[in-house]
Amino acid sequence: MEARNLEKRLWLKGSGLLSTIHEIARLTTKVAKDDPRRLIHSLKFGLTISLVSFFYYLNPLYVTFRTSTMWAVLTVVVVFEFSVGATIGKGLNRGLATLVGGALGLGANHFASLFGKNYEPEPVFITLFVFLQAVVSTYIRFYPKVKARYDYGMLMFILTFCLISISGLRTDEIFDLAKERLSTILIGASTCVIVSIFVSPVWAGEDLHNLVAQNIEKLGSFLEGVMDESLRKSENEKLARASLNSVVVDSKSCEEALANFARWEPGHGRFMYRHPWKQYLKIGNLTRLCACRVEALNGYLITSIINQAPQEVHEALSRMSAQAGKALKELASSVETMTSSSYKINPQIASLKIASSNLKSILKSGLCEEYYKNLLQVIPVAALLIDTVASVEQIADAVNE
Amino acid sequence: MEARNLEKRLWLKGSGLLSTIHEIARLTTKVAKDDPRRLIHSLKFGLTISLVSFFYYLNPLYVTFRTSTMWAVLTVVVVFEFSVGATIGKGLNRGLATLVGGALGLGANHFASLFGKNYEPEPVFITLFVFLQAVVSTYIRFYPKVKARYDYGMLMFILTFCLISISGLRTDEIFDLAKERLSTILIGASTCVIVSIFVSPVWAGEDLHNLVAQNIEKLGSFLEGVMDESLRKSENEKLARASLNSVVVDSKSCEEALANFARWEPGHGRFMYRHPWKQYLKIGNLTRLCACRVEALNGYLITSIINQAPQEVHEALSRMSAQAGKALKELASSVETMTSSSYKINPQIASLKIASSNLKSILKSGLCEEYYKNLLQVIPVAALLIDTVASVEQIADAVNE
Repeated sequence: MEARNLEKRLWLKGSGLLSTIHEIARLTTKVAKDDPRRLIHSLKFGLTISLVSFFYYLNPLYVTFRTSTMWAVLTVVVVFEFSVGATIGKGLNRGLATLVGGALGLGANHFASLFGKNYEPEPVFITLFVFLQAVVSTYIRFYPKVKARYDYGMLMFILTFCLISISGLRTDEIFDLAKERLSTILIGASTCVIVSIFVSPVWAGEDLHNLVAQNIEKLGSFLEGVMDESLRKSENEKLARASLNSVVVDSKSCEEALANFARWEPGHGRFMYRHPWKQYLKIGNLTRLCACRVEALNGYLITSIINQAPQEVHEALSRMSAQAGKALKELASSVETMTSSSYKINPQIASLKIASSNLKSILKSGLCEEYYKNLLQVIPVAALLIDTVASVEQIADAVNE
Repeated sequence: MEARNLEKRLWLKGSGLLSTIHEIARLTTKVAKDDPRRLIHSLKFGLTISLVSFFYYLNPLYVTFRTSTMWAVLTVVVVFEFSVGATIGKGLNRGLATLVGGALGLGANHFASLFGKNYEPEPVFITLFVFLQAVVSTYIRFYPKVKARYDYGMLMFILTFCLISISGLRTDEIFDLAKERLSTILIGASTCVIVSIFVSPVWAGEDLHNLVAQNIEKLGSFLEGVMDESLRKSENEKLARASLNSVVVDSKSCEEALANFARWEPGHGRFMYRHPWKQYLKIGNLTRLCACRVEALNGYLITSIINQAPQEVHEALSRMSAQAGKALKELASSVETMTSSSYKINPQIASLKIASSNLKSILKSGLCEEYYKNLLQVIPVAALLIDTVASVEQIADAVNE
């Protein structure tokens, strides 16, 4: 009996372990399946760090830079990011901050040495400078614009200033130290930037571009099918749509981060250096507003509601949602290909406007007055659809800009 | 003439400079006004870094730790964060990652030395290990759970592993180096944690708690006034409300970050160690859903619309929105004080339900059939209000849990 219990317990433990392993394996494949570039990024990072660690093995280089070589490794680990924009942004931030922080640190050290004995800097002054600098820089990090783009640079500025001004107390070769550290950091950062640009680059700008276009596309295909009974019946379809909508609603912070990274990127492919990234944020915001309305529309059991409505209303609603969906898809492909297809879109928007005012007048007509009770639930749906159409028009305006 | 032009230009430049200075001064006061704890945080950071830099000045300590003292300064700069939870999370991540990364780095170094001559580690093996470790760790950083809580730890693990295993090639005293570095990092991290807990602490958990309660409160006071003409007239009021709503809608990423930090915090004040932080996220999500509906409601020119409606409908709508607002405020204070005030809230929710079904039956009655055309715009408002009430009920359920 005991033996069997033990066996059972072991078996349970074993199957628990197995299911954990299984879960981890599933997660691992999912990470790569969601975005295969993640695997490539990992390999790129491995490559870069191996390259930089070579500096340590090559004797001539080691003689020049001594233990400062470590700073090249450190820089690679911290600066190498997923997208080109983020890597360049961090690299530039780090390089500039090290330069400015180092220079000011040397200055503070020199100033403090004026008050010391035998040109040994006075610890009290150094501590005072470090304290003041830390307080002011930390405070500046709270400024919204600084936080969005230069947070890492401010951090590195504080770090370098402290390290240089404090270590000045001990090292006579402070200039050499600063020079070595700066050059190793430059080597590390430039290796990162070169690898990230030339080995299968991931452009934040392109990601932003695609994300915005995809979100509009998703909304479009949802709207096209929203009145179609057969499309709405399958459970999987519903789940997919629900998650789709929450993605559209939640994508704000992701878009803002991408736009911040994209500003650092040089021109590439179809994007010039000063591509109007802000416009994408505007389109993204309008898309989310539209998604908010579509999600509300999704909350109604539309098919059962509109079947109660008179034939005319039913038809007008279906036609309008299909048209709005098609217009959104057209807008998405216009964003996608970056061509101004206003000659295609403008007529669609115009006919959407006509359909919208038609629906309003049908609802106001005597015909509908008879069906009043049946229409109680249809009217909110119609109102939402009219609002949705209005926000589709806003998106079209923003895209055409 | 020329002199006057020059004067004018100088004056323009001067006034441009002045307005820039003015703008910066405005920003500076705004940062502190929005949250006075930011100023305190800056002072705390200055204090901590000055404390740690003392290690450098005290000779006995310098003799023990030598240049590794720099790592204490570096740790403080990187680990010290605004809230206690974030600081502890980063400190623990850094400490553990340094420990594990260091141990594995030593192991890799030892293993590579088995294949080298005279126990000098073989560079090829070291590079291989570094490459493999970098690829695997970078890949793991993409796992959603790891990204949310252990991203910084993974980065530090990669860093320490690379530094220790590579520098092992050059330093005989690798054990001493690892020990020194670990102890200075521990000194830096624990100084950060101690200062952040004991000098006017900022608890992420408390911030999350207040944010969730405030958002419900804001929605409540908005709903209370939504049908009131006089309240809606002033332009400032409107702007404040618009920004208020966008805050409520956009607060998701902020709440998630706070909940992640809050999990690291020890028990404090009214919060125990394992406070159900996830419940706050659930309430927050429901609040945002409700805000989405309230914002749609806000899109209508409600006062002019409901004035067309018959008296009964008008009254029912006003009563309902006022009641819903009051219920939300009650919920907010229930979250705020962490008391289960279900005996207060349950009757309110019950009467809200009754009001909601009353409104539905009024709309279905013959009375309204006469007013059909006037009601065309009222019905969507009513439907939205009914939905809002439904999501208020959901929030109440979540709060009572």
